[in-house]
Amino acid sequence: MGRISKKPEVRRKEFIDTADKLFREKGFDQTSISDITDKMGLSHGSLFYYFQSKNELMKAVIYNRLDNGKQILNNIADDPNKNAIQKIKLILNSLINSYDTKDTMIDFFQNESNAALHREFTKRSRELIIPLFSQIFEQGVKEGLFRIKYPKETLEYLNYIIENLVENITSSQDKNEYHRKIKALEIIIAKSLGVPEERMKLL
Amino acid sequence: MGRISKKPEVRRKEFIDTADKLFREKGFDQTSISDITDKMGLSHGSLFYYFQSKNELMKAVIYNRLDNGKQILNNIADDPNKNAIQKIKLILNSLINSYDTKDTMIDFFQNESNAALHREFTKRSRELIIPLFSQIFEQGVKEGLFRIKYPKETLEYLNYIIENLVENITSSQDKNEYHRKIKALEIIIAKSLGVPEERMKLL
Repeated sequence: MGRISKKPEVRRKEFIDTADKLFREKGFDQTSISDITDKMGLSHGSLFYYFQSKNELMKAVIYNRLDNGKQILNNIADDPNKNAIQKIKLILNSLINSYDTKDTMIDFFQNESNAALHREFTKRSRELIIPLFSQIFEQGVKEGLFRIKYPKETLEYLNYIIENLVENITSSQDKNEYHRKIKALEIIIAKSLGVPEERMKLL
Repeated sequence: MGRISKKPEVRRKEFIDTADKLFREKGFDQTSISDITDKMGLSHGSLFYYFQSKNELMKAVIYNRLDNGKQILNNIADDPNKNAIQKIKLILNSLINSYDTKDTMIDFFQNESNAALHREFTKRSRELIIPLFSQIFEQGVKEGLFRIKYPKETLEYLNYIIENLVENITSSQDKNEYHRKIKALEIIIAKSLGVPEERMKLL
């Protein structure tokens, strides 16, 4: 295939998707700019028409993941054929399964110079998670499945767990710890929502 | 009183305590360097022998608060005359009461340039809270007061709530919201530890 002229926003998206795949496979530090441009059949320098640096590209990758996550979670929340328990389980499972050992978003955030970006990411996740769960909590109460005395306040507390969930699960040293983390999550969520534990099985 | 020559570490501590008091009373932005030095009967410039800037002084204030908090919480955890439920309640109440409307530590952290400091503070709080609660959880299980299937993992999740507690409570718009936040906290903590709700009353 020869060099095809693409619209800038199409090319930009292609950079993001290619980088995202490579960052997941090889890690952020281990992926060079040439790895990305080679895979796209472009010259090394072409990246700089779209991004100031590999760091800026990583930021775009992170916000793209957030957008994708948002769409997936919104689709679950709006599904008219699922009850509130099913929705909570689907969302938690979707978060848990976004866990990827080779991925370096968390390492990237740990770098001191990325602390502000990390907080911005957390803030945006919070703005995504709170209204979504709020909607599902309401549904669950209407369906008679949840018994929550202080839904808004409970959700704020549970959100601190949810927004740290991927990082927490990722830190598992082995399968056993991973398993225990999921079981402990099932219990906290079930008890906080007033749902029997056996109805909140995630594995 | 004339100018008394003090040891540098004594004077440094005096700066920290005076600033801490003024920051709580007037807020960080509203407190000038002269406010601090006037109160200590020193010249404006004397502060710069001990701290590079008001920002650096604020950092010292924050770490000093963490040290003080550590001592208070350790004393509660090590008290041989209290059971595990009493200890959990004392610690949560001590955190809740560190809430101070005029205080600006949280505003200070919100500033983008302080994001790394905010994260460092969270990390240090976590290193303080986890072993402390871990010890109390063990005590509670031995005393037959707690029923926790996965103590370590449950504590990690609850810690995300605890480390955000002061910030969350501080954001209360009115007495009612403040009250609901405390009640919701009682329920989540009680249920997670397998303790009857009525034994976890914090107000």
